[in-house]
Amino acid sequence: MGNTFGQLFKITTFGESHGGGVGVVIDGCPPRLEISEEEIQLELDRRKPGQSNIVTPRKESDICKIISGVFKGKTTGTPIAIIVPNTDARSQDYNEMVEKYRPSHADATYDAKYGLRDWRGGGRSSARETIGRVAAGAIAKKILKQIASVEIIGYVKQIKDLQSKVDPNIVTLEQVENNIVRCPDAECAEKMLALIDQIIRDHNSIGGIVECVARNVPQGLGEPVFDKLEADLAKGAMSLPASKGFEIGSGFAGTLLTGSEHNDEYYLDETGNIRTKTNRSGGIQGGISNGENIVIRVAFKPTATIGKEQNTVTRSGAETTLAAKGRHDPCVLPRAVPMVEAMMALVLCDHLLRHQGQCSLSGKFD
Amino acid sequence: MGNTFGQLFKITTFGESHGGGVGVVIDGCPPRLEISEEEIQLELDRRKPGQSNIVTPRKESDICKIISGVFKGKTTGTPIAIIVPNTDARSQDYNEMVEKYRPSHADATYDAKYGLRDWRGGGRSSARETIGRVAAGAIAKKILKQIASVEIIGYVKQIKDLQSKVDPNIVTLEQVENNIVRCPDAECAEKMLALIDQIIRDHNSIGGIVECVARNVPQGLGEPVFDKLEADLAKGAMSLPASKGFEIGSGFAGTLLTGSEHNDEYYLDETGNIRTKTNRSGGIQGGISNGENIVIRVAFKPTATIGKEQNTVTRSGAETTLAAKGRHDPCVLPRAVPMVEAMMALVLCDHLLRHQGQCSLSGKFD
Amino acid sequence: MGNTFGQLFKITTFGESHGGGVGVVIDGCPPRLEISEEEIQLELDRRKPGQSNIVTPRKESDICKIISGVFKGKTTGTPIAIIVPNTDARSQDYNEMVEKYRPSHADATYDAKYGLRDWRGGGRSSARETIGRVAAGAIAKKILKQIASVEIIGYVKQIKDLQSKVDPNIVTLEQVENNIVRCPDAECAEKMLALIDQIIRDHNSIGGIVECVARNVPQGLGEPVFDKLEADLAKGAMSLPASKGFEIGSGFAGTLLTGSEHNDEYYLDETGNIRTKTNRSGGIQGGISNGENIVIRVAFKPTATIGKEQNTVTRSGAETTLAAKGRHDPCVLPRAVPMVEAMMALVLCDHLLRHQGQCSLSGKFD
Amino acid sequence: MGNTFGQLFKITTFGESHGGGVGVVIDGCPPRLEISEEEIQLELDRRKPGQSNIVTPRKESDICKIISGVFKGKTTGTPIAIIVPNTDARSQDYNEMVEKYRPSHADATYDAKYGLRDWRGGGRSSARETIGRVAAGAIAKKILKQIASVEIIGYVKQIKDLQSKVDPNIVTLEQVENNIVRCPDAECAEKMLALIDQIIRDHNSIGGIVECVARNVPQGLGEPVFDKLEADLAKGAMSLPASKGFEIGSGFAGTLLTGSEHNDEYYLDETGNIRTKTNRSGGIQGGISNGENIVIRVAFKPTATIGKEQNTVTRSGAETTLAAKGRHDPCVLPRAVPMVEAMMALVLCDHLLRHQGQCSLSGKFD
Repeated sequence: MGNTFGQLFKITTFGESHGGGVGVVIDGCPPRLEISEEEIQLELDRRKPGQSNIVTPRKESDICKIISGVFKGKTTGTPIAIIVPNTDARSQDYNEMVEKYRPSHADATYDAKYGLRDWRGGGRSSARETIGRVAAGAIAKKILKQIASVEIIGYVKQIKDLQSKVDPNIVTLEQVENNIVRCPDAECAEKMLALIDQIIRDHNSIGGIVECVARNVPQGLGEPVFDKLEADLAKGAMSLPASKGFEIGSGFAGTLLTGSEHNDEYYLDETGNIRTKTNRSGGIQGGISNGENIVIRVAFKPTATIGKEQNTVTRSGAETTLAAKGRHDPCVLPRAVPMVEAMMALVLCDHLLRHQGQCSLSGKFD
Repeated sequence: MGNTFGQLFKITTFGESHGGGVGVVIDGCPPRLEISEEEIQLELDRRKPGQSNIVTPRKESDICKIISGVFKGKTTGTPIAIIVPNTDARSQDYNEMVEKYRPSHADATYDAKYGLRDWRGGGRSSARETIGRVAAGAIAKKILKQIASVEIIGYVKQIKDLQSKVDPNIVTLEQVENNIVRCPDAECAEKMLALIDQIIRDHNSIGGIVECVARNVPQGLGEPVFDKLEADLAKGAMSLPASKGFEIGSGFAGTLLTGSEHNDEYYLDETGNIRTKTNRSGGIQGGISNGENIVIRVAFKPTATIGKEQNTVTRSGAETTLAAKGRHDPCVLPRAVPMVEAMMALVLCDHLLRHQGQCSLSGKFD
Repeated sequence: MGNTFGQLFKITTFGESHGGGVGVVIDGCPPRLEISEEEIQLELDRRKPGQSNIVTPRKESDICKIISGVFKGKTTGTPIAIIVPNTDARSQDYNEMVEKYRPSHADATYDAKYGLRDWRGGGRSSARETIGRVAAGAIAKKILKQIASVEIIGYVKQIKDLQSKVDPNIVTLEQVENNIVRCPDAECAEKMLALIDQIIRDHNSIGGIVECVARNVPQGLGEPVFDKLEADLAKGAMSLPASKGFEIGSGFAGTLLTGSEHNDEYYLDETGNIRTKTNRSGGIQGGISNGENIVIRVAFKPTATIGKEQNTVTRSGAETTLAAKGRHDPCVLPRAVPMVEAMMALVLCDHLLRHQGQCSLSGKFD
Repeated sequence: MGNTFGQLFKITTFGESHGGGVGVVIDGCPPRLEISEEEIQLELDRRKPGQSNIVTPRKESDICKIISGVFKGKTTGTPIAIIVPNTDARSQDYNEMVEKYRPSHADATYDAKYGLRDWRGGGRSSARETIGRVAAGAIAKKILKQIASVEIIGYVKQIKDLQSKVDPNIVTLEQVENNIVRCPDAECAEKMLALIDQIIRDHNSIGGIVECVARNVPQGLGEPVFDKLEADLAKGAMSLPASKGFEIGSGFAGTLLTGSEHNDEYYLDETGNIRTKTNRSGGIQGGISNGENIVIRVAFKPTATIGKEQNTVTRSGAETTLAAKGRHDPCVLPRAVPMVEAMMALVLCDHLLRHQGQCSLSGKFD
């Protein structure tokens, strides 16, 4: 249970860090979409380890293979299975974790829940699971782009206390990919890089905030009351490893305003469309997209696995210490960017199909 | 679509602000639980309008009636339908909203999505919908309490910039209910009351933050990877009207720490149980409860409907202004407390049953 | 669990035979459909007890009330709750069933599963539950009719060994409603009536077969592989009380033919459409509708509750006998007709929306 | 959509006849079950082509590989992905089907629904898809056996008009596997073999009936009202390729009896357990298992693809004829046996977990 996401564009991920591989089955993909392994690979390469010297040095090429659901370059409407084999697994680095629980990691809770766990590389709790999400997200992005020219762009907004200045309304993918930290504020990115370098030397880790915008989202997506668009976005974001907080539009800061300051007043633009002057709503009102840009922020804690020695306990109930070996990200933020984008794309694509399912035939009633 | 929440303890709410009534169907409730309308009413009374002079003066007694699923005072395992009729609806207050869209409300987006809307009192987008959640939450709370002595306590943590001091590990329901603002920090509560009074006089509104703790939660609840416990809590919270942000444990502030500062080191308590010294994880690691207190915070924006005049547009595409009539909360926070508690209870109860479903038989394999 | 049916046009029923009432919540109904209580009532009247002297004499007017989801005569896209109160419940007739289990009824199994049961009138296992299905089915029928001129007509095909002759391709609703047994073969209907009269005098019961046809079903409905259209129809039919068998098209008799005899050869009709000469497929191939008439048959066993004395046991484990009091159908078939139609309509409507969700946007890819 | 089956023990299959392979992801499997590829292979070998001279001669070894979810020989509670590569695909045999629709096959309907199709070997509509079901069913069977000693045995009951005599209460797996037709009535099996031989020579095909029994099923499985145990069994069976009918217990023949003849009277066995003297209910009453043997029958039509020439049409709308090449089963029944068993096991295992989820904690309420 719990490994499936979405109602109509429905993905199921599988796989562990050091098992035979990781992957995803996408059920409900619209037929006749042109899609190739190369297009998916582009997104996976943004997520993969070893892509730069500020992420985990594990050397996985993360080459994806489409097993089913695509015929002569087009989706057939049947399940798309995508698999990425594991190749550079060094299980011996985790021998210590057979017994020792890493603080703030999933070791102890998996044992508590299931009575056993695959300790190699974190097993299922490894961020390697997100490969399936990013692969599926690549397809969701393409659907959204072809149907409605939707653009989804994520970036590092903040690392530790270093806050960048980025305008979500105009930021480009090129600006994001311009540096390895994926912060489009070049000046701030430099400081972030310096900070990460220091953290690597300290055998420590840091966290931060990813911001993600979706532009050109059609009006009308989102299903009140439980499947409000922001609720599904929150679930998607908070299901990512290491995430600790989610906000949309004005978010927590919005609580400091009065209603008259916070409300987004309506006006008619030059073409007569109903628009809002401000966007504290973050593109969603009453759980439904209003056509303005959807802007979310996701807080990621500092990576739990660190080289510094910490107090912990063993599986068999003895106190001990642990200075983790293995290869880990000092800061997950640069690699979290494509993950957040993927969750945004998956939620929007699912709701696009859901809206189509419920509402596209009503014209025949009028 | 979108009106059902939960997998095993599954609720479906229905009803509009001014229609025949609102209610909920609970499917999957364990049989043989003693439950009465009186117990459910206790929670509904904490949510109902008119309960004090700082909430909406609409006079709804919100008396619930159990239609099915309970026989001789006990749940039968079949669907429990609970209905609360609407009595004090003044649809005429909303005549203006037939045409005018309230800024930052759901009027425009419902029209965009469905092509029509029940404009009376906000229709389905009214917070009145949460009656069904709170009623179901009362049952979920009782199950959790009887099975595992779980305690769920929500309270107003912050209103606008007024921050209270509350220790989630020891706060009591009595302290929360001690004042009408539901802030257990009595001194801060006084200031909050004064602020709300001022806001009422200004025909304006304010928002804030609800914090909620669940204590004695069994280890092992939560389903990686998408249905992580915090992901479902986030979805539940962000599906509440007016919520703009969610965080668990250290939340957004946790991004300012390094890994060695943030990690919750393990130790063995006097009875040999594995515990964490700190609780920045907020009671969940790897998506699974670890037995520590679960602590979440939810940001609520200032109420969208205000008496102050604002710029807006009409349904037929003309610019206009609106100073809303109708009866509205100047600050939803006091009434949001039982709503957040309900979502916490619904998520935990659902995951308790889910965990039981997948894992309780594995002892036979050992 | 188990009280919800459908993925996009999703219904949840609730209620017991003698509780506060029975009803349904429909989630996902397309907006802007004109619908009235009167239209729904027409279908409920075909299902209700006491409608003729060959069905149970319980006097329930079964008047439905729409609580939500309809505004000014049109669906709003939000949940439609419909309730029918129970009025003529005579719980005292069931006093004996507090202890005694009716053979082939649900008394013993509900006790085994839940540890208790509402023994009044069969509680949740009463066919009264199907009111919610028939009410929702009325709406599904109207959607199908308005979108695609779909006609759904059920009728009694067989009672005990009395087989009627009916051509599903041309049978009309008028022919079905022409007699109280709902068998459009008037001659056979006479014999059936005589047989039922005899069975009533014998304090016994009989079963039979309902056949149901859906005409003008659009091509392309059904979702391989598990949600094949016939699979969902089978589930719908076999979830009706007293059903013991389901078949589509050639059904069990089709096993007696060879492939060359059984296959439906294709041809082009005068307008160039691809059609099949025969319809042993029953309108579905590979789980997907092919545009031919969908024809299903459902076997209903003789009513379990009979006046004749039978051997049974008590809840507390003693052997005894039971000659059931209470008011029961000597033959459920006439009232089963609208139930089977409802399940057909619910499945087709759900798959219409699902198909729309997945496939209606693909034109933009071409 | 439609490629997932089950609520708690949830499987998703993927793959086409001639693509990269076929497989399944099982989500929700209880942890700590010992399982090996060899155990799964045993069931796959019963399903695989080329196993005898009366089934399709396609030479697929159908070797399964567990990709995830099993660690050191035990399930971990995380998704189990199982893949079987395709090896002996001869796509050239299907060149004719690029244009020509096989009568009573899925070619035309897939085109109608999706606007394209993978014509190689039937693509997704190939019975090869059931590999994933049989693999998952092997695990479900083992769980049921270990938890409750459940035995599931299917067999060929009838081929064309050749009816066998088999007592479901005592039939053994050894008797079933004793001949290649999988009919435990040895005498009848001889006749069936002769008939199949004749049909092969005729380039024709035949169908028949598989009966399947589940013994030692715990009382209390099944979820009224829509997820009645027989409803989910019906859905499972009718989702198998080529199935046209389903019945449980007395089935269609039960309609010929009166209630007093049909009802299963209760008695107390020597140990005081409530039992039924007869089992026309087929082990299920009110949608819930009663502890008696569950007996179902599934009708399979004659294989649609035959070597005999038939009239058909082309994709581009011209009338033509087709004498199918490719390798096909003259009679699917022997290979359908493990498929029906798999669906029985999947449904029972899912409902075992569901029952555990809802009802196993209620003892704490008493």
